[in-house]
Amino acid sequence: MRPRLTLKQYTTGILAADRHILSRAITLVESQLPTDKQLAQELIKALMPHTGRAFRIAISGAPGVGKSTFLETLGSTIVQQEHKLAILAVDPSSSRSGGSILGDKSRMPLLAQHPQVYIRPSPTTGILGGVAEHTREAMLLCEAAGYAYICIETVGVGQSETMVQQMTDLFLLLMMPGAGDELQGIKRGILEMTDLLVINKADGPGSQAASAAQQFRMALKYLPTPASGIAPPVFTCSALERTGITEIWQYILHFQKQIIENGFLERQRKNQNLDWMHHQIQNELLGLFYKNKDIQDLLHNLEPQIAQGQLWPGEAVQRLIDRFKNQE
Amino acid sequence: MRPRLTLKQYTTGILAADRHILSRAITLVESQLPTDKQLAQELIKALMPHTGRAFRIAISGAPGVGKSTFLETLGSTIVQQEHKLAILAVDPSSSRSGGSILGDKSRMPLLAQHPQVYIRPSPTTGILGGVAEHTREAMLLCEAAGYAYICIETVGVGQSETMVQQMTDLFLLLMMPGAGDELQGIKRGILEMTDLLVINKADGPGSQAASAAQQFRMALKYLPTPASGIAPPVFTCSALERTGITEIWQYILHFQKQIIENGFLERQRKNQNLDWMHHQIQNELLGLFYKNKDIQDLLHNLEPQIAQGQLWPGEAVQRLIDRFKNQE
Repeated sequence: MRPRLTLKQYTTGILAADRHILSRAITLVESQLPTDKQLAQELIKALMPHTGRAFRIAISGAPGVGKSTFLETLGSTIVQQEHKLAILAVDPSSSRSGGSILGDKSRMPLLAQHPQVYIRPSPTTGILGGVAEHTREAMLLCEAAGYAYICIETVGVGQSETMVQQMTDLFLLLMMPGAGDELQGIKRGILEMTDLLVINKADGPGSQAASAAQQFRMALKYLPTPASGIAPPVFTCSALERTGITEIWQYILHFQKQIIENGFLERQRKNQNLDWMHHQIQNELLGLFYKNKDIQDLLHNLEPQIAQGQLWPGEAVQRLIDRFKNQE
Repeated sequence: MRPRLTLKQYTTGILAADRHILSRAITLVESQLPTDKQLAQELIKALMPHTGRAFRIAISGAPGVGKSTFLETLGSTIVQQEHKLAILAVDPSSSRSGGSILGDKSRMPLLAQHPQVYIRPSPTTGILGGVAEHTREAMLLCEAAGYAYICIETVGVGQSETMVQQMTDLFLLLMMPGAGDELQGIKRGILEMTDLLVINKADGPGSQAASAAQQFRMALKYLPTPASGIAPPVFTCSALERTGITEIWQYILHFQKQIIENGFLERQRKNQNLDWMHHQIQNELLGLFYKNKDIQDLLHNLEPQIAQGQLWPGEAVQRLIDRFKNQE
């Protein structure tokens, strides 16, 4: 393991927008070592006053919809406006397998070399909650380093989307015109958290993307208006042929302006901070419980009886909670 | 308070389908008294082998859609087939206010007097989780007393629906043709858990209900297929004029047959038991934490700082969890 820097070195480096130190700091916050965790907490605390100024965009979509090409094209548009852009990835499947398929720089060759762009792949260890926690911390570090737009990329598997939505300002869902079933790959609830739906690959027969867009417009009509008060529009684009991207970028700017003006952004950030805390409390409590060896043994005995209907769940809960209380 | 019966008296009475004793047993399981809780646990345990044989139907809909009239009409159809029917209500709003607006027998005069029908209003005390827990226990008692169909009525406020869906076999959503906005009153996610959508009040100008039904068919097309593998159909009816009810009852029977044959019912029940246990564990753990006076004081101090972005939620979580561990 590479030696750690001092707190001072990390903070100074990040505030000076040193990408190399930013990377090492993100590695620090992803670490499981207790000493690293302690230092990471201090680092985040020191940088807190410099965070919160970026606009945070979630970009979600099933594998195959062209997320990398889309990010490459949208990202190029963003940096052409002289904005600094960071791209982070949350990919729970890769974190389980130990490899990282998202945020791979080779998939975004133009952005990977751009001096105003910082790309960070998914953390490669930890459970989903931990991965999301680390992504949130990495995002704050990028904000302190002056990145004005942060894109967080997810694979659309459901649970990670909820967590990512809870740390971003705009949720962009990327789809493609399907052969028959436009909805493949959409998990429950994803459409309901979408602020902006983009049909990519509008480069085949034009009518397919247009009719997919039309169908999604209908579908979105039947969902409750998001908390922002802004009904989600549907755009089509071809990331490959670079068409339709400017309109999407314009809409993102428009949305950003709107939610700043109507007070939603500020309200949302406050709520996100509180929600995040309660969410983490829940994770920690469940961790204390389910990682307890005695509880694990008891659960292992009780679960089959419950599944078979031989044991009333209420009784099992009572026994488990009693055991837990006596443990602590 | 009325004196309690013995465990033997409760079990014998319930297994003999004594409605009076059934009612007293439900009062027992709803009680907050530690001695009652103990006895209730024993009772549920004793009756477990006699539970699980009813078909469990959730009936949800916003106030004003005509749930009572619908239940009265559907219930009459069910009892005409010689089936025993129990109707239970989950109404978190009434439990907060101390009154019970649901399951009021005066709203279902025909069923209230029918010897094969048992109606139980919502428990009038406790938090939502507790209300749902008691409803689940009441349902098991009704099953032990030989009720073949159990309808659980909810008000469509969101959270209670999820809990009720987790204890039933079929989720019926009742709507009415709206003046302009058919979707008023549907909360996020409700449509996605629906197995059967019914547009009531198809007694006005016929086209309104028909076009509402058509719109919902479109909307449902855009949602993922439920875990049962059976896409939810849309029916129209007039509970008042007693039209369309037979078709709905036929569909319920058809659905019941299907999920028994395809193995979904058995799988679902097993999963529901396990989910319920883990859900209750979570409730208990959160209760231990948030009801702790020290934790409450600390939270009270930390929350404003977090909302304002002065304190990193991760640090607050650390402090709260440390405090909790030292408490126990």
